[in-house]
Amino acid sequence: MAPITAVALEGIPPISEGDDLAALLAEAMPPGAPAAGDVLVLAHKVVSKSEGRTRRLSSVTPTARARELGARLGKDARHVQVVLDESREVRRAEHGVLIAVTHHGFVCANAGVDSSNAPDDDTVILLPQDPDRSAQELRSRLRDLLDGPAPAVVITDSFGRAWRHGQCDIAIGCAGLLPLDDWRGHHDSRGHRLSATVIAAADELAAAADLARAKDSMQPAVLVSGAGRHVSPDPGPGATALIRSEAQDLFR
Amino acid sequence: MAPITAVALEGIPPISEGDDLAALLAEAMPPGAPAAGDVLVLAHKVVSKSEGRTRRLSSVTPTARARELGARLGKDARHVQVVLDESREVRRAEHGVLIAVTHHGFVCANAGVDSSNAPDDDTVILLPQDPDRSAQELRSRLRDLLDGPAPAVVITDSFGRAWRHGQCDIAIGCAGLLPLDDWRGHHDSRGHRLSATVIAAADELAAAADLARAKDSMQPAVLVSGAGRHVSPDPGPGATALIRSEAQDLFR
Repeated sequence: MAPITAVALEGIPPISEGDDLAALLAEAMPPGAPAAGDVLVLAHKVVSKSEGRTRRLSSVTPTARARELGARLGKDARHVQVVLDESREVRRAEHGVLIAVTHHGFVCANAGVDSSNAPDDDTVILLPQDPDRSAQELRSRLRDLLDGPAPAVVITDSFGRAWRHGQCDIAIGCAGLLPLDDWRGHHDSRGHRLSATVIAAADELAAAADLARAKDSMQPAVLVSGAGRHVSPDPGPGATALIRSEAQDLFR
Repeated sequence: MAPITAVALEGIPPISEGDDLAALLAEAMPPGAPAAGDVLVLAHKVVSKSEGRTRRLSSVTPTARARELGARLGKDARHVQVVLDESREVRRAEHGVLIAVTHHGFVCANAGVDSSNAPDDDTVILLPQDPDRSAQELRSRLRDLLDGPAPAVVITDSFGRAWRHGQCDIAIGCAGLLPLDDWRGHHDSRGHRLSATVIAAADELAAAADLARAKDSMQPAVLVSGAGRHVSPDPGPGATALIRSEAQDLFR
């Protein structure tokens, strides 16, 4: 197996709506990069900001439900309203935490609505409307802008987990990548048939990339090399393929 | 930030009970490795095998409960018995899947009991009894055996996740590592106080390492460099610190 390397790109400026993110990413590529099989992992916030996926709290009028939840959880009711607007369902509202199912189907705290790394205190950042489409568009633009091969693109967010402390970065969108590495039917080193092994490669790439940057470092983009076996010429099924449907989920 | 690199160690032979795993790992180190701040990530199976944490199914007599669960789930009742022996609680038994809380407190399929990469069809491999202690012991032995600094040690397993398809490698034991990277109270790039950011660095290291090896490759050990900010001279709290207690868990 090839060694895996993850390197944060330097010099990406703060992003605002309408910025040409792909051009800024192409400019920030190290000399000679990307190589074939490379994966560009992006914190979703730069994607969301460039797409204008933000809300101004001062323009939000909370409903009675948002006010009630806000009071119960000690949260700004306007922020709660934005979370509700981004959710198809609230699964838990306890201990100051709002666990929502987003319109995409992601189960996460506050439907991914976040004020950290926002441009000012009145602005919250949403998840991209269609992160797989965002990844595809970025990959297409990068193909036009770069001399070499376009990298696969993974868009990430930090999600908490049931049963475990701490957050891990996971893939909310991807393009040019096989997000699941399916070993079912293959054999282990002893010839034993693997019956249940499907690796969430896109999520492992997101996690690996997160190690290469600090949360205060203005490094939203990380180039991962050595994972070419997960890269595909086609856009692939996207990170949507990682969402377990309600019927398949033992923990709803 | 330093680039992250993850390289699988070559030439580790099949492991049996009583093998000196630390000596085999020390021998397999690439020239000049490990460097200060390196992390050695080990698939738990080699640790379990060296510790004799296996069971022979032919020696297991299933109880009535194991027989009933086995019939319901289409599983070997003796395998189910071993899962029950390794569990403090069964949380779900549906769709052919047994989700258990292990004696350690991990919530996972089959309490981590697995037949893949086992030496023969009669043997199942258990999780180490105390993976944090296993990691500490390996780290101490490596300190004695290696010329350079002892690496931090992470012991991993592949866990499924609620709500998401596919498995990610996570840390079930660690030593010489700060498993949680706590940014609460720090500030983001704009000076905004981060209120909820705690990164499960040990789990992200496990995921990154998994990308550097294939499931059929006999590469149970991966050396990760560049993550020195998570490494500590002390053993640290271990992966036990990653387990969310029942009282803190919204999804029990």
